Amino acid sequence: MSELVKIVLGEDELPRQWYNLAADLPHPMPPPVDRNGAPIGPDALAPVFPMNLIEQEVSTERWIKIPEEVLGILKIWRPTPLYRARRLEQHLKTPAKIYYKNEGVSPPGSHKPNTAVAQAYYNREFGIKRVTTETGAGQWGSAMAFACKLIGIECKVFMVRISFDQKPLRKMMMRTWGANCVASPSMETETGRRILAEDPETPGSLGIAISEALEQAVADEKTRYSLGSVLNHVMLHQTVIGLEAKKQMALVGASPDVIIGCAGGGSNFAGLSFPFIADKIAGSTQARIVATEPESCPTLTRGPFAYDSGDVAMMTPLLPMYSLGHTFVPPPIHAGGLRYHGMAPLVSHVLREGLIEAVAIPQLECYEAALAFAYTEGFIPAPETSHAIAQTIREAKRATEEGKERVILMNWSGHGLMDLTGYQAYFDGKLSDYSPPAEHMERFLACLKDLPKPPPLK
Amino acid sequence: MSELVKIVLGEDELPRQWYNLAADLPHPMPPPVDRNGAPIGPDALAPVFPMNLIEQEVSTERWIKIPEEVLGILKIWRPTPLYRARRLEQHLKTPAKIYYKNEGVSPPGSHKPNTAVAQAYYNREFGIKRVTTETGAGQWGSAMAFACKLIGIECKVFMVRISFDQKPLRKMMMRTWGANCVASPSMETETGRRILAEDPETPGSLGIAISEALEQAVADEKTRYSLGSVLNHVMLHQTVIGLEAKKQMALVGASPDVIIGCAGGGSNFAGLSFPFIADKIAGSTQARIVATEPESCPTLTRGPFAYDSGDVAMMTPLLPMYSLGHTFVPPPIHAGGLRYHGMAPLVSHVLREGLIEAVAIPQLECYEAALAFAYTEGFIPAPETSHAIAQTIREAKRATEEGKERVILMNWSGHGLMDLTGYQAYFDGKLSDYSPPAEHMERFLACLKDLPKPPPLK
Repeated sequence: MSELVKIVLGEDELPRQWYNLAADLPHPMPPPVDRNGAPIGPDALAPVFPMNLIEQEVSTERWIKIPEEVLGILKIWRPTPLYRARRLEQHLKTPAKIYYKNEGVSPPGSHKPNTAVAQAYYNREFGIKRVTTETGAGQWGSAMAFACKLIGIECKVFMVRISFDQKPLRKMMMRTWGANCVASPSMETETGRRILAEDPETPGSLGIAISEALEQAVADEKTRYSLGSVLNHVMLHQTVIGLEAKKQMALVGASPDVIIGCAGGGSNFAGLSFPFIADKIAGSTQARIVATEPESCPTLTRGPFAYDSGDVAMMTPLLPMYSLGHTFVPPPIHAGGLRYHGMAPLVSHVLREGLIEAVAIPQLECYEAALAFAYTEGFIPAPETSHAIAQTIREAKRATEEGKERVILMNWSGHGLMDLTGYQAYFDGKLSDYSPPAEHMERFLACLKDLPKPPPLK
Repeated sequence: MSELVKIVLGEDELPRQWYNLAADLPHPMPPPVDRNGAPIGPDALAPVFPMNLIEQEVSTERWIKIPEEVLGILKIWRPTPLYRARRLEQHLKTPAKIYYKNEGVSPPGSHKPNTAVAQAYYNREFGIKRVTTETGAGQWGSAMAFACKLIGIECKVFMVRISFDQKPLRKMMMRTWGANCVASPSMETETGRRILAEDPETPGSLGIAISEALEQAVADEKTRYSLGSVLNHVMLHQTVIGLEAKKQMALVGASPDVIIGCAGGGSNFAGLSFPFIADKIAGSTQARIVATEPESCPTLTRGPFAYDSGDVAMMTPLLPMYSLGHTFVPPPIHAGGLRYHGMAPLVSHVLREGLIEAVAIPQLECYEAALAFAYTEGFIPAPETSHAIAQTIREAKRATEEGKERVILMNWSGHGLMDLTGYQAYFDGKLSDYSPPAEHMERFLACLKDLPKPPPLK
């Protein structure tokens, strides 16, 4: 087995159940609350999500069965191959062994359809005819367009304007799969009209796009909203990644010392890491687990743990999470999928628990890492994914310095074929690093001041 | 096995040898000749190609060993999965069983790197530092950029202007892998300057781009030219597709009744079909083998079998092939990879031998087929690939009419994520069908009049 470039699994090895980390947390998560701090029950979410997904959102069952129809569609690209990045290792002259899970092989090119297919399925089963959603870089929107087409419901996507303008092919991709995609803020919603009136030049943000999608969802009985990250059920659906990776690592007889994923809302990071965090809680591994984020949008590394809204119009319940404040408008970096102000409550919780670490990485180092990867392993990574690669290279260099044969496992969350304008901007010297100054941070964090505070960990 | 969506092979199942159809032809192929009809020997090709590739070009050995380093890079995406297109079958309500070989999983997204990696390797082994080439839709150019980067030599690409303008992401992709890509005709060569002087608005053609790449290759001792299709050694390198497919079909206990590939220069068609043509010559299968081409560039269906040059400036030897004439400038259809005036001599020869059939398909039917595929199987096909899908759907419908449980095997040569502008043009009603009128054909075929004629089949 030692010469394998990639470890492939047959379809019979596809996990039949999702793993729910909520079942194994050392301390319970604080509940979502309203603006008065009162816990929010499942019923309050009913205008937004179908009840079958709400049940998953609040479930503490350890294993949840994947429906057969969902499995049938996942099999189009799953199980995904686990690669040994030998050529990158040789380039780095590192004793580290680098493995990466290639989630770029799905039709839309990222890990996102793992949950998109499940969400489209549960909506249709609940009698919903149309799903609204938002997208940053476009990975989520195209995943949802793809999923809705194969499941047979309609799809409406609000795409953050900066990405809508930078990535015309992404909206074409959504349109090709039959979705209706508009730039956000749009004139189609009250939130959009209000924000455009204040700042017609706004690059938009995921928080704004979520508000618009929510507004349209609650206005129609046969429409519901779909979120590509952050929520518990999204993390749940992504765990197929880590469950497969564990089988694949076992096949080569290796056990990861470091596990790395980039984190915007947290879903690809959770997908790979949660099944390993279960082992860490159980005491069967001491692996370090590292979430990486852009220095320009440093949610986990500089945001407080707080109750905050998931969207700019505060239409969602308050979630317990690391947040830069729901009014945060990050600079227009090319890793559009990592520009979200908050972080999944489950990911936030495990950081609080000390089960994971977080690192912020500057943009130029990420592009450098992405090219080192493309020039050795061949695949061109998405700008989001480059944040995991940059950390992987840091860890590999550390292994070289320490002379340790460390095993690194990374989630390669998606390809960058739709993001080549970012690479061109990098080659043309148009990109720079940016770390928000303290006063910038304070200004956005001010919106958290009058909100309820989460209880201490206990 | 009957419920499998895809049949995957482990890396140990990757073919270790290429299959050379030249070893098994019922009648010998006519040799390449000069303008006087005198056969051209290997030495005459030495300024253009490295001698190790020329040896493969003229070889009649049945099996040729794949170098270990080439295998190591092929393993990044090979063996490619063979899919059973159940969802498409259900949509078509056909008793046919449709299988497709997914060559879109390579880093550049098509079958092209199968030969690009081998060619870059043999050039480097021969001491060459830089390869020039041409590209139509961009699939070949990006494959060569990818291959040269991983093998460690320079790459210069002349890209047909119509595609250069329609597909900016393709040139970004080549640049990201470190290649130098310019629009053809360019001002960098004599051929380019001459053609631009005659018609500054020309959309370009593969024939012109080949002339430019050849001109730069022969002018420098450490530079050679690389061709992405047409030549015998290119067909040879692509046979990994069919060799894998045979193993995969055997695994599910099925044997194809119809084998389909689109044909521009012929390489993806040859890659899938040649190992099956060997069986047909040996009498162990009666499968129909169908090459599909655009109605607007009907090389196999309306071109004569003739001696013609591979490029517009007549720098190549004369090859025995079906051709529309080397001056042919096809209309700007979106399947840029199928706009070549000629057809691989080996593919031309097996059509002459009656071992294969050829069909021309109108553009709109191809887009319709591509969408039916994307809406059921999930993957968005390249416009070139849609010509194979359209024929597959015709065959499936025929199976329905005849009530026959026919097994169809198709080469899904690449994804269309870089070709979404074509889909938009289709949605916007901007595309139409086009069949060259007889007088148009005659005008271009006139350039063949004074060239030597190939001998009859004997």
